[in-house]
Amino acid sequence: MAKELTTRSENYSQWYLDLVNKADLAENSAVRGCMVIKPYGYAIWEKMQAQLDRMFKETGHSNAYFPLFIPKSFFSKEAAHVEGFAKECAIVTHYRLKNDPEGKGVVVDPEAKLEEELIIRPTSETIIWNTYRNWIQSHRDLPILINQWANVVRWEMRTRLFLRTAEFLWQEGHTAHATKEEAIEETLKIINLYAEFAEQYMALPVIQGVKSENERFAGAVETYCIESLMQDGKALQSGTSHFLGQNFAKAFDVTFANKEGTLDYVWATSWGVSTRLMGALVMAHSDDNGLVLPPRLAPIQVVIVPIYKKMEELARISEKVDELIPKLKAKGISVKYDDNDNKKPGWKFAEYELKGVPVRLAMGPRDLDNGTVELARRDTLTKETVSFEGIETVVEKLLEEIQESIYNKALNFRNENIRKADTWDEFKQILEEKGGFIAAHWDGTGETEQKIKEETKATIRCIPIEQEAEAGKCIYSGKPSSGRVLFAIAY
Amino acid sequence: MAKELTTRSENYSQWYLDLVNKADLAENSAVRGCMVIKPYGYAIWEKMQAQLDRMFKETGHSNAYFPLFIPKSFFSKEAAHVEGFAKECAIVTHYRLKNDPEGKGVVVDPEAKLEEELIIRPTSETIIWNTYRNWIQSHRDLPILINQWANVVRWEMRTRLFLRTAEFLWQEGHTAHATKEEAIEETLKIINLYAEFAEQYMALPVIQGVKSENERFAGAVETYCIESLMQDGKALQSGTSHFLGQNFAKAFDVTFANKEGTLDYVWATSWGVSTRLMGALVMAHSDDNGLVLPPRLAPIQVVIVPIYKKMEELARISEKVDELIPKLKAKGISVKYDDNDNKKPGWKFAEYELKGVPVRLAMGPRDLDNGTVELARRDTLTKETVSFEGIETVVEKLLEEIQESIYNKALNFRNENIRKADTWDEFKQILEEKGGFIAAHWDGTGETEQKIKEETKATIRCIPIEQEAEAGKCIYSGKPSSGRVLFAIAY
Repeated sequence: MAKELTTRSENYSQWYLDLVNKADLAENSAVRGCMVIKPYGYAIWEKMQAQLDRMFKETGHSNAYFPLFIPKSFFSKEAAHVEGFAKECAIVTHYRLKNDPEGKGVVVDPEAKLEEELIIRPTSETIIWNTYRNWIQSHRDLPILINQWANVVRWEMRTRLFLRTAEFLWQEGHTAHATKEEAIEETLKIINLYAEFAEQYMALPVIQGVKSENERFAGAVETYCIESLMQDGKALQSGTSHFLGQNFAKAFDVTFANKEGTLDYVWATSWGVSTRLMGALVMAHSDDNGLVLPPRLAPIQVVIVPIYKKMEELARISEKVDELIPKLKAKGISVKYDDNDNKKPGWKFAEYELKGVPVRLAMGPRDLDNGTVELARRDTLTKETVSFEGIETVVEKLLEEIQESIYNKALNFRNENIRKADTWDEFKQILEEKGGFIAAHWDGTGETEQKIKEETKATIRCIPIEQEAEAGKCIYSGKPSSGRVLFAIAY
Repeated sequence: MAKELTTRSENYSQWYLDLVNKADLAENSAVRGCMVIKPYGYAIWEKMQAQLDRMFKETGHSNAYFPLFIPKSFFSKEAAHVEGFAKECAIVTHYRLKNDPEGKGVVVDPEAKLEEELIIRPTSETIIWNTYRNWIQSHRDLPILINQWANVVRWEMRTRLFLRTAEFLWQEGHTAHATKEEAIEETLKIINLYAEFAEQYMALPVIQGVKSENERFAGAVETYCIESLMQDGKALQSGTSHFLGQNFAKAFDVTFANKEGTLDYVWATSWGVSTRLMGALVMAHSDDNGLVLPPRLAPIQVVIVPIYKKMEELARISEKVDELIPKLKAKGISVKYDDNDNKKPGWKFAEYELKGVPVRLAMGPRDLDNGTVELARRDTLTKETVSFEGIETVVEKLLEEIQESIYNKALNFRNENIRKADTWDEFKQILEEKGGFIAAHWDGTGETEQKIKEETKATIRCIPIEQEAEAGKCIYSGKPSSGRVLFAIAY
């Protein structure tokens, strides 16, 4: 193996960082907390973007672009929003540099101070609702269904590649509606869309639910989320969709004449997923040999490695491979033929394992004689010798099988790691020994939630949407509860 | 017409702003100099992006992402770069807000001051070359062919939607090479790619050339550009590709072991086009009725408008249209059927003219009886009645014809507006009376160039690559010159 990884059992957290670095996904930059997303990592992100963008457009949304900067005063307009957000952020105070009078490079020109400071957007509700005010007069101007692909900045103190960075990339949807019902419908439509994307493309099983008040987005009436489970038993919030009620419309005075001709405030939603999903993708499926990518998001789905001693053998192998490549491409399969003569096959095998290429084909002189090829699966690390004839159809089916298999593996793991706890001792014991999700009764108060968090670091990940009503007693306070919620220690 | 535009002859500049606003391309935001790109404008930009991205990938480039922030000290590392760039930019000095002790919203927390200020990237050479230092050790690590789609900020004092905004969207390519020849080849490959994109997709004829030293990118050895002409006779720089020599490698100490095993500095290029192209697209082709979009970049290529009085007629028309739409879509044509009952056909005609939809089909009861449809071209504003049978093939060919015709119209206009001037008086007279490009002899000095600019506002747009050698005398200084350069007043 060219590049040694820390193993998961040794140190899960270090394994993750090693993998992100060595598989060329991302690295830390010279700017504290900001990452460089490297070409291989960005190629995966582009596949995610392309699919999400398709799904947004199929559901009637359009893309647009709003400014990076938000005037400071906008943040104080929505009271809950400013409490939840405005504190840790990047603030632009000046607009000019000048040569250092002492000759040491450049300094900030003190005369170029902005009258009002500008905040780099941590999220765009405020600037967007300030804009919507001019776009909306009548119910005929509604709904507005807009999404934006953008960078945002939150000045996080502790950062970790993809999972929590000062600058990250995301999409943020911001919709405006004439009725409460329609806005709620949109909120749910999107959380469903996110769940479908996570499960069908990322092969990541998710639980849909509602956030408790403490965990709700600042300014939202209700926050829906998808929660997933990583291999170390920690949960990861993978996407959120907020029903914002009329809060932002009231803060920015956005009214419309409804069908009855009277003025009403507009109803809002917002929703987003980010490059955080890259972290989820890595942590959910990968192993001690490197990435395991679901075929639908793999930049390279099939790699072909020639095994040869003499150049004449390489030529004969290449001839066969040149026949195969167009057949694979015709099926929409992305394929790379690595005939680089500077590296040994063993090095290449390890490299493509590290990079998570789902299928590897290896071909040597004996395969040529026998009309065979060696077919290896990244997810199971199994290999078999199969007939070269018709291999493109075998590969096509195998890619689908791998996609499903990776999902099922993650689903089994997730399901095995949802445990019920009925007492406080049981709750603490499961958390300590096993992690995962704990389904437990809760009395519904923020106070209890806060105490549980302080004592165990576990938070309520969500109140699942699909949930049986069940009377019980809060594991912490003993007060009555009407259903279980999901606790976990989260990223 | 629903929304009146200022005419071009009345006030070209106002016509442009009216059009950008009324056709829903973009608008000014609450933040000085920053624009909101509205969904219709963004849809055009997405078509540009998709095509450019395809072309970059076909030529071996990958996308990546580098931080928004650049440490202030990075700017002073490349001397010419800091002189040309670092002055007007957005500067982050603090990272936290706090509640105003006097209760008035939020204020900047003076305790959260950054040790070193961060500059919002005006361009990313510095942060990227600082990163490349760790990526490059040997000639085997080269070339690096990376592109980034990003937002950048330059604190412009006078802004104008798309053409010059404080924040804009662009792509910036940054490549690293082992040899000077290879880097120059890359620089030229990209300027050719830009020219192909402008001509084939934007229907915008361009002249490829080299910038004079005064107009060169800060830090470049040579800047190649494509220059286009707007309908008011002003030139617009539409893309640049820079050969950076070893300047940034030296500034950021990026060396590699070459094939001979000795250390050498890496050779660099950078290149970009931006949302400025949206301004070029609007100004090159549009007319007093609104946008004229080349079909290859039009979000809606064909609009179908039903003409009816009774709902039963609408039903019959819709039935025919429902047959047609899948046939158009099968040919990859984007089509909108506007059966909105709240608007009259005349209003719709004007609206889609304003939006630049290349082809309009209108269908009334008489057309149903006759098996016909009315076909209107946006570019020429002509219409004719044609057979409904096989209309999809007619439309397909017409879209190609329109694409070509818009290009040829712009090409003729551009060619008619390149004039030779052999004396200073002639030069000034052409500039004043006609505008356009002036091909004139120049003595090659920055001094003369500067004086011409001061006296006439005209600048050297480029020294064309395809150019006959011709001995002559500088129109300003009378000194000898070996070839003509192109002057113009530019956006």
